[in-house]
Amino acid sequence: MENMIPLWLKQRAFLTPNRLAIETESRALTFQELDESARALALTLATYGITSDMKVALLQDNTVEMITSYHAISYLGAIAVPLNTRLSARELAWQVSDCEAALLLYDNAHQEKVNSIVLERSSFQVCNINTLDQLVVGEEHHYLKAEMRSDAPHTIIYTSGTTGHPKGVLLTYANHWGSAIGSVLNLGCTLEDKWLAVVPLFHVSGLSIIMRSVIYGMPLRLHRHFDAKAVNEAIIHHKVTMVSVVTAMLTKMVEELGDQRYPETFRCMLLGGGPVPEPLLKVCLDKNIPVYQTYGLSETASQIVTLSPEHMITKTGSAGKPLFSAQVKIVDEHGDRVAANQAGEIVVKGPNVTSGYYKREEATQQAIKNQWLHTGDMGYLDEEGFLFVLDRRKDLIVSGGENIYPAEIESVLLSHPEVEEAGVVGMKDEKWGRVPVAFVKLKNKAKITETDLQMFCRDALAKYKVPTRFYFMDSLPRNASGKLLRRELVKRLPSDFQ
Amino acid sequence: MENMIPLWLKQRAFLTPNRLAIETESRALTFQELDESARALALTLATYGITSDMKVALLQDNTVEMITSYHAISYLGAIAVPLNTRLSARELAWQVSDCEAALLLYDNAHQEKVNSIVLERSSFQVCNINTLDQLVVGEEHHYLKAEMRSDAPHTIIYTSGTTGHPKGVLLTYANHWGSAIGSVLNLGCTLEDKWLAVVPLFHVSGLSIIMRSVIYGMPLRLHRHFDAKAVNEAIIHHKVTMVSVVTAMLTKMVEELGDQRYPETFRCMLLGGGPVPEPLLKVCLDKNIPVYQTYGLSETASQIVTLSPEHMITKTGSAGKPLFSAQVKIVDEHGDRVAANQAGEIVVKGPNVTSGYYKREEATQQAIKNQWLHTGDMGYLDEEGFLFVLDRRKDLIVSGGENIYPAEIESVLLSHPEVEEAGVVGMKDEKWGRVPVAFVKLKNKAKITETDLQMFCRDALAKYKVPTRFYFMDSLPRNASGKLLRRELVKRLPSDFQ
Repeated sequence: MENMIPLWLKQRAFLTPNRLAIETESRALTFQELDESARALALTLATYGITSDMKVALLQDNTVEMITSYHAISYLGAIAVPLNTRLSARELAWQVSDCEAALLLYDNAHQEKVNSIVLERSSFQVCNINTLDQLVVGEEHHYLKAEMRSDAPHTIIYTSGTTGHPKGVLLTYANHWGSAIGSVLNLGCTLEDKWLAVVPLFHVSGLSIIMRSVIYGMPLRLHRHFDAKAVNEAIIHHKVTMVSVVTAMLTKMVEELGDQRYPETFRCMLLGGGPVPEPLLKVCLDKNIPVYQTYGLSETASQIVTLSPEHMITKTGSAGKPLFSAQVKIVDEHGDRVAANQAGEIVVKGPNVTSGYYKREEATQQAIKNQWLHTGDMGYLDEEGFLFVLDRRKDLIVSGGENIYPAEIESVLLSHPEVEEAGVVGMKDEKWGRVPVAFVKLKNKAKITETDLQMFCRDALAKYKVPTRFYFMDSLPRNASGKLLRRELVKRLPSDFQ
Repeated sequence: MENMIPLWLKQRAFLTPNRLAIETESRALTFQELDESARALALTLATYGITSDMKVALLQDNTVEMITSYHAISYLGAIAVPLNTRLSARELAWQVSDCEAALLLYDNAHQEKVNSIVLERSSFQVCNINTLDQLVVGEEHHYLKAEMRSDAPHTIIYTSGTTGHPKGVLLTYANHWGSAIGSVLNLGCTLEDKWLAVVPLFHVSGLSIIMRSVIYGMPLRLHRHFDAKAVNEAIIHHKVTMVSVVTAMLTKMVEELGDQRYPETFRCMLLGGGPVPEPLLKVCLDKNIPVYQTYGLSETASQIVTLSPEHMITKTGSAGKPLFSAQVKIVDEHGDRVAANQAGEIVVKGPNVTSGYYKREEATQQAIKNQWLHTGDMGYLDEEGFLFVLDRRKDLIVSGGENIYPAEIESVLLSHPEVEEAGVVGMKDEKWGRVPVAFVKLKNKAKITETDLQMFCRDALAKYKVPTRFYFMDSLPRNASGKLLRRELVKRLPSDFQ
């Protein structure tokens, strides 16, 4: 028989109605208030015809409304599809269409982009959450779920792959539950905890904080945009005990902090999204900042491997050990487990691991074998079982916490009528970690400039994906079977930027 | 596909090998040491032919060996059947035989009883864990599991029912997991936690502490027997932060405590096993003891409803609200939900709730309908959803935290050749809460005394089940259809003892 679970927000509002659920600079909501808002919004969404298993795309900033949207969608048994607000209208239109969203729920900040999206595609309804009529909390309604199947899909999160279009990662209630529980068994929880969400709520890192908040009954402090000073003040003056950050954010926070210290009650700086420079860790150590380095993917509903601060020195460079119910192994190209300290592909398993990609049967079968997810990332386990990540997925460029796949940019470049070949790699950048740069072979007699290509990319891609430089070449390095050798391209970069 | 989970102790020993797992007055073991002992014992049990799905009955005191036994059995994929050490040899023989145990693993303290059990039945092997040859930790062995199906049975715990023989409650890994997770989401957890196990490890209350210890990575302090002074010292001097107790224990602890206070770091007195007298709660309030009253059953793998200390006064008499993933409802005799403040049967649901009784298809179907367990206990929910338990299962006698079912004692009495009718009820007792007393109608011309019947019961029953008094009657009160009216019997008791 299916495992039915009470709807999380409903249950939380029943158990601890008066606990603080969300605080922003200007507002504070209890779980009961959040629940009332979510139910009201759900009833409104129902008037748009939204019902079980339909998809609702979200294009919103980090706001109370965004959190309410997630919960309202759950109340209808529908599936949330959070969209990266930094994507171009064309990219967004593609995702909304690919997931067959019935509705795009957006906020004032994205009106203009939505207009462009609708120009691209219009097979869905749109609704501005800020201009909805005053919602009325009606009688408890047959539209609203009280329970969910634990294996029902909760979210589809798009992630770029090594080839072509992004894929929608299906995350079930059980996946989010597994993530929240794995985290609490590692980090603990107390009534004093308050988790700051300043990472985007459309990313799994932000979404997972919403989940923990409602599952633990823990207040979430919400910042709309990242501002190092505001984050430091939240920790020092607003009793924030835990924060999720990426390296670029932590760097700025530490700079801004200066001679100040975080209070002792601050207990977790959860640091994800790519490699961490050793000097930064050393500064954190000096300032007694409890950094938990993590490794995770959209496919694992956030962290799956985490390093405790006690190992910051002895295991520098490691992402740590798996969460309690999760497992990690390193395999060779035949899928066989390799010995300690041998590099190979990182393969993971656990209740937080996705069961597949939406409508991508083949990609799912390639990635998930016998419940083990093949991440495409390279790494090794030392003799004690600590994971060291060597390379994120083949040629992945991590830029300020965002993942950029060269193949996606290359395919845009190749769609330009004057471009014959294109290769994209990451170039070192002081601010963002890495930024994409392009190597291009033009067609005979083509007469276009770097600026032309940049403009062309801007139409199709999120700004952070647009190559910052273009190198024109007569031919691109390829192996015998014609495969592009991106590593050879990297060598053409000035040595300081490789 | 089945949900596979890493074996808990193996995973825990991998993740945090050097954390304290168990401490007693004289010993301390890390999780790695506990794991080594458990694997060694598992390999030894394998030489007895123990393998997946076989049952191993445990007759042991609260010792490190008892905890090791549980984990060793898991390592083989076998099922633990903890036996109540207070039962008579006849009762024990029946349970060992009913569960088809392949092995009875006991300790020195129970050698004599085991001799008697073997006289009763001998369809199983016996093994004294204290006289096992020095165990050798071998190479990692194909006998030892690394993963388990989450729906695999972990334990069979016998519980008496309203009729006839006890029934074996099947508890899966998922049930124990659900219980541990429900508890952590309610009580939180920190690296400073240490849980004292002084309740019996053969009860679900003790077993659940073992589970929490390995799942949370939290030290368990183990006391062999209950001694109020020792428990208070453990709290005051040995950094115990949480204790599971029953009312009779708490009463003695508070007495023994005198003018002393528990340190502020002591954060949870988990109080289960029946009704709590208000004066006791008041004393706890005065002494600032954080009492969490709970309601739970073997069938729910320990607590399923818990009252936080903040509601000790406002909700006196309530057992609280359900754990996060659990649900409670009150139904009438047709199974329909009743309104707030209306009494009815307590019906519960959640991941910690058993899927049934071992080899008792009919009893399972009667008790569990559509995933809801009908507890047989009576109670109501107030308008805020707080549970108030009115009566434990029909005529249940709770005596010092042990459940006693009149039907079981009556059936023993009725097996006496001179007894024609028998009825058993609970009589108030200052020390134990209640104790069983019997009303008996003898056959014509029977010439037996109270002492004869007491001796007869002692052969068949655990001491705590033997009626402390026998009342001889000419006839027992019955309703029109001949059903014994135990409530009428209660009225025959002296009014102070009703």
